[in-house]
Amino acid sequence: MTSADAPEDASPVSEIGRMTGFSDGVFAIVITLLVIELRVPEHEPGELLPALLGEGPAYVAFLLSFGYVGVIWLNHHALLRLVRGATLALNWINLWLLLGVVVIPFPTTVLASAFAHGGTDGDRRVAVALYALTAAAMSAPWLAFFAYLRRHPALLAGGTSAAHVAAQRTRPVTGMALYLISGALGWLVSPVLGLVGIGVMIVYHALTSEGVRRRRPRRRRRA
Amino acid sequence: MTSADAPEDASPVSEIGRMTGFSDGVFAIVITLLVIELRVPEHEPGELLPALLGEGPAYVAFLLSFGYVGVIWLNHHALLRLVRGATLALNWINLWLLLGVVVIPFPTTVLASAFAHGGTDGDRRVAVALYALTAAAMSAPWLAFFAYLRRHPALLAGGTSAAHVAAQRTRPVTGMALYLISGALGWLVSPVLGLVGIGVMIVYHALTSEGVRRRRPRRRRRA
Amino acid sequence: MTSADAPEDASPVSEIGRMTGFSDGVFAIVITLLVIELRVPEHEPGELLPALLGEGPAYVAFLLSFGYVGVIWLNHHALLRLVRGATLALNWINLWLLLGVVVIPFPTTVLASAFAHGGTDGDRRVAVALYALTAAAMSAPWLAFFAYLRRHPALLAGGTSAAHVAAQRTRPVTGMALYLISGALGWLVSPVLGLVGIGVMIVYHALTSEGVRRRRPRRRRRA
Amino acid sequence: MTSADAPEDASPVSEIGRMTGFSDGVFAIVITLLVIELRVPEHEPGELLPALLGEGPAYVAFLLSFGYVGVIWLNHHALLRLVRGATLALNWINLWLLLGVVVIPFPTTVLASAFAHGGTDGDRRVAVALYALTAAAMSAPWLAFFAYLRRHPALLAGGTSAAHVAAQRTRPVTGMALYLISGALGWLVSPVLGLVGIGVMIVYHALTSEGVRRRRPRRRRRA
Repeated sequence: MTSADAPEDASPVSEIGRMTGFSDGVFAIVITLLVIELRVPEHEPGELLPALLGEGPAYVAFLLSFGYVGVIWLNHHALLRLVRGATLALNWINLWLLLGVVVIPFPTTVLASAFAHGGTDGDRRVAVALYALTAAAMSAPWLAFFAYLRRHPALLAGGTSAAHVAAQRTRPVTGMALYLISGALGWLVSPVLGLVGIGVMIVYHALTSEGVRRRRPRRRRRA
Repeated sequence: MTSADAPEDASPVSEIGRMTGFSDGVFAIVITLLVIELRVPEHEPGELLPALLGEGPAYVAFLLSFGYVGVIWLNHHALLRLVRGATLALNWINLWLLLGVVVIPFPTTVLASAFAHGGTDGDRRVAVALYALTAAAMSAPWLAFFAYLRRHPALLAGGTSAAHVAAQRTRPVTGMALYLISGALGWLVSPVLGLVGIGVMIVYHALTSEGVRRRRPRRRRRA
Repeated sequence: MTSADAPEDASPVSEIGRMTGFSDGVFAIVITLLVIELRVPEHEPGELLPALLGEGPAYVAFLLSFGYVGVIWLNHHALLRLVRGATLALNWINLWLLLGVVVIPFPTTVLASAFAHGGTDGDRRVAVALYALTAAAMSAPWLAFFAYLRRHPALLAGGTSAAHVAAQRTRPVTGMALYLISGALGWLVSPVLGLVGIGVMIVYHALTSEGVRRRRPRRRRRA
Repeated sequence: MTSADAPEDASPVSEIGRMTGFSDGVFAIVITLLVIELRVPEHEPGELLPALLGEGPAYVAFLLSFGYVGVIWLNHHALLRLVRGATLALNWINLWLLLGVVVIPFPTTVLASAFAHGGTDGDRRVAVALYALTAAAMSAPWLAFFAYLRRHPALLAGGTSAAHVAAQRTRPVTGMALYLISGALGWLVSPVLGLVGIGVMIVYHALTSEGVRRRRPRRRRRA
């Protein structure tokens, strides 16, 4: 791999443009498809209002997923701003990352259905653990992306230091560990506790997408 | 917030490109998904024509939604032309704005089903109020967008005056107020009256997307 | 309208980029959604092959629609290459044009179901007439687009003559007339005859998308 | 055709941009739509976990299709980097190529259902043969693309030699031959053997998308 580095570094002529366009397309479709789950509930004539109100959990799930995909898009947006050019390997890592994005609607639906349609406590533990496992697995390609960038500084955009990139690896590592802990809590202790852990992690990623953007990682005022 | 402005203004290196591409993707998908609701109605052999004619309300709802999303896209198009660069906060406001766009198909379907499938007068009041509430809520991020731009003039595109931006805040404020009034009229007085109010507001936003584009807000010839 | 031209011509600062990106998104989604209609047919175990073969008309409808949307995209591609900048009015005309594109899957499904699922001859006449009417209506915004460009030569891309644009109006006019005739033939004489007329028109538009590109309309070698 | 070359070569003013944007839109939608097949399975309260585990084949099919579309996108990405401008003919070939991409979800679903829902051995042979036939047919437009580029060297991006393009034709030819052989093996000998052949071909295309990128086709280290 080390001796193969030279040609890899010699060929990142590939501009970032198409990787960005393709990724944005995937993000846009995923965030829009979420609304398809919202449907007019079956109801007796005159019973539209209570029928709509009864769909509460579905609205919450929709808003959560919208926020989650939005946070990931913002993180991805900041990620690609670190990059000047793409190699084949980076495109593969990006595809792996998008796999996680594309999957999101599935554990979300499982979660919503377990909490809404009278699922048992056991079903809720399963749903929370599945969601946490998916989120933890989703952190892996981010780690790979940062690791690859650190090993190929020629791909970095002007003004991005390798030290800054190295520092960013904290975030997917934290994500992976804490999502797994949240899943274990949800499975073993209480599904609601697991959900709270997941929510905390989404907020953490929302706040640190800012952190990635700042070039001065010493001062942290927002988190 | 005031002392934090400096770093915020120092980092809008982020070009508008990805925000635009992502937004256009969302708009394109929402406007295309609307047709999925149009289906060949179940019918006896030889009864295709009356079956198609019986779907009248679905076609009207499709056309209205297409026009509505189109109007919002034109407004968004004009909005982003005021902007030179994006900060994280502006990206969040844009995501909030897109949330409204993504949601549109849902109240539209509720409205169409309340008016088409023999919903009661009460159901129609609920549907009109839901639509108006959604539309009013959708005005909030536009107000936030203009307010943020006014406080961060460094983000404005060349040739856009802060006064022009400040003047634009009239539109979401008017929208919020009149959509709420339309919803109240639809709920308390008559659903058809509420619908008329909503229709007037869509036409208002269609006409004033023009108003946003003109650099000379003194002369108004179209409205 | 004539005295209002000056400000209209003064403000086409709006680059073509977003109109193009939004349109391409709509085209990409429509052309991809067509495959959703293809599903694994219900079948007895061991009867997959005859079940797949029985779906013949659905495959034909899919291929026809794919080709039709592809032809329109190529025409739209050539159309926007005539243009240097967009006004609000041009954006409206483009939205009107995209309305036609978005609608296509609906008459296609009606056509496929009338011919596949044992529809009567009367149903087939209705389906062919609906398809032809839609296609004829779809020609109107193209005519409006060319007419608008002819009246606003400042919007034309360098190297595009107003005479070239004027000549292009032949195509939507021909389209409107012959689609209507095909629809009348399909309704009054024979649905298959109407279908043939529609097919001829799609091929005509495929061949003349070439015609639009050539700067020398005198020589026609392909058609 | 030879005498018609001059005008063809004279008009590739059309930049690659829209072809790329449209293609990326199609790829993004196809790769995202695959997840729609993943649904919460019907289950008794408390039986969520076994119900999810029972969906194993659907997850495998989803991952395979995601990988396949990803590989094709990477190949298409490398393909368009060889190109400087597009003619009408090249746009047609690209549409033909996208037809194959759009179709993928259909044979994938057929394959998944034949292997998952207790299909017979005969059904599995049919499904594998259909998949292999589709994949073989999908190679044809790639061959046409390379052949067209070789005949129109003016369209090549700077630094791309005609010899490099000519060498690339090996891949679709290999693809077509070996997919057909895999299909015949699957049909006549064993469906699993056919599947293995298809999997080998996908890996082959993954590895040689690299090969297309390298400007030095003499040294092959990866394959």
